[in-house]
Amino acid sequence: VVDERTLISTFFDRQRDRWPDRREDVILGIGDDAAVLRPEPGFDLVVATDSIVEGTHFPPGVPAAAVGHRCLAVNLSDLAAMAAEPLWFSLALSLPRSDPAWVSEFSSGLFALADRHGVSLVGGDTVRGPLGATVTILGRVRPGCAVRRSGARPGDGIWVTGHPGDAVAGRLLLPEATPGAEVLALRQRFLYPEPRVREGLALAGLASGMLDVSDGLDDDLRKLLVASGVGAELDAGELPLSNELRSVRGAEAVECALTGGDDYELCFTVPVADEARLREVAAHWPVPITRIGTIVPGSDVRWRLHGQPLTIPDSTFRHF
Amino acid sequence: VVDERTLISTFFDRQRDRWPDRREDVILGIGDDAAVLRPEPGFDLVVATDSIVEGTHFPPGVPAAAVGHRCLAVNLSDLAAMAAEPLWFSLALSLPRSDPAWVSEFSSGLFALADRHGVSLVGGDTVRGPLGATVTILGRVRPGCAVRRSGARPGDGIWVTGHPGDAVAGRLLLPEATPGAEVLALRQRFLYPEPRVREGLALAGLASGMLDVSDGLDDDLRKLLVASGVGAELDAGELPLSNELRSVRGAEAVECALTGGDDYELCFTVPVADEARLREVAAHWPVPITRIGTIVPGSDVRWRLHGQPLTIPDSTFRHF
Repeated sequence: VVDERTLISTFFDRQRDRWPDRREDVILGIGDDAAVLRPEPGFDLVVATDSIVEGTHFPPGVPAAAVGHRCLAVNLSDLAAMAAEPLWFSLALSLPRSDPAWVSEFSSGLFALADRHGVSLVGGDTVRGPLGATVTILGRVRPGCAVRRSGARPGDGIWVTGHPGDAVAGRLLLPEATPGAEVLALRQRFLYPEPRVREGLALAGLASGMLDVSDGLDDDLRKLLVASGVGAELDAGELPLSNELRSVRGAEAVECALTGGDDYELCFTVPVADEARLREVAAHWPVPITRIGTIVPGSDVRWRLHGQPLTIPDSTFRHF
Repeated sequence: VVDERTLISTFFDRQRDRWPDRREDVILGIGDDAAVLRPEPGFDLVVATDSIVEGTHFPPGVPAAAVGHRCLAVNLSDLAAMAAEPLWFSLALSLPRSDPAWVSEFSSGLFALADRHGVSLVGGDTVRGPLGATVTILGRVRPGCAVRRSGARPGDGIWVTGHPGDAVAGRLLLPEATPGAEVLALRQRFLYPEPRVREGLALAGLASGMLDVSDGLDDDLRKLLVASGVGAELDAGELPLSNELRSVRGAEAVECALTGGDDYELCFTVPVADEARLREVAAHWPVPITRIGTIVPGSDVRWRLHGQPLTIPDSTFRHF
């Protein structure tokens, strides 16, 4: 079985040397969180497409409003990870049946998030099929100011927003019949991930490399390291585990944070010389930022916990 | 059961009076072939999203190259119908299994068409699910020059490119075991629809209203008439039926042309004063153009055939 990444890079990624025919106005193509296009001098257009499908990206029975929120949130998160301002989006919706009540709730969740970020739905399509949604989001960035995955340099600090691990813990707790306050808080983190749009925008000119955490912090960080051609030394003891996560998952909290996915937090690197400015910029954000490691030369990724080397397990959290 | 158009207009079309909060840079939103956005003065961005799903938009067993061609062709056709120049596209692909041979053939069909029109794939996503593809295409048009559905005026001639009806005839002939030349030609028209990109671009400044024919000439034309607030008088005897269609469908050829769908030809209106210029512009096109009627005041659509009123049957061709 060939995995998705191999299929895409083999058959669709024509940015590589063997296809030198790409348009000159494609500044950055397939392989980052979003593409950067330059239709006019002085204007960089940023484009991302992300699909969510029931059973893969969210379990059956999730509230329709959460599905509407999610399909836009994951795309807003992609633009945030480029330090781009989101403007418009299109929606292709796949529905197993005509269900006006479901669609009404879906659209409420979608537009509540859209309105908070000032983005407009400008088109789309509806088809009959398994429940799922594909959003393409368009935004802009000052020319040359998109933050790529490839810019991390040795010595840079490695940072993450918010509390990774909460989302997967919340997902695992969806079936809980009599949830307490902690469980409800974690569920909310899974059902309504908050894309870090304003935080991403503020990191333009500060972050050397950035991506959003969708597949799990360790997995996504490795993509940034590969794209940048660097390695990392990290301390899992520095992970910003939430009290709710510690309380609910106990000793597994670190594993949740490293491999859980669905967090839609930002992971980014910042040169040490800019750390004071970073702390100043982030002082009034609604989420904390935490330095969890340092970029090093080479390609090794070394996690430690309480001074001991930590091997990241092949997570059992990755699939439903 | 609520149909797709009602669902969309009820829950997603916020261009209407009750949602006055849309962005000012959205020049034209949901409801035409594509949206028109103005991120910068002097630059109009045109965006369309169209999905195709196996079993709805193409039958099982269609060659993978034809599926790759089709998902891009239907979107190029949307941009052509706005008189816009296509530039880039994203692709969300849903695959029932990992099948490198199928994906390889799909990507060949996709890129053969993309390269002919000079458009670049800039991103996308792959998910596990029923066979289908959603493309979002981005293009540009000179500010204010997009041709909308709403511009037809009484007295304008109604025109169509190519030979509507061929595609549905070709689709119905897919199971034919020992196809002759006519059948093969019609099949090709279904499997590899040719989006009228250059023709659409040349109609900027000439066509008063335009859309592409995907659901059937009569059905699509009525959308243009409703958007323009006008009626039409048409002569089905003027329909440019191909020899292949006449030969294969006989007396049903007219019905195929009016209700068949999948043609991806352009239907457009042109003021009578501009007809000479239109004929001059179209003289060297690879497809014929044919005047099939006239825009009239009111909202009635009157088809005639051999001098007699013609009632359009509720087509049996519309679904698989």
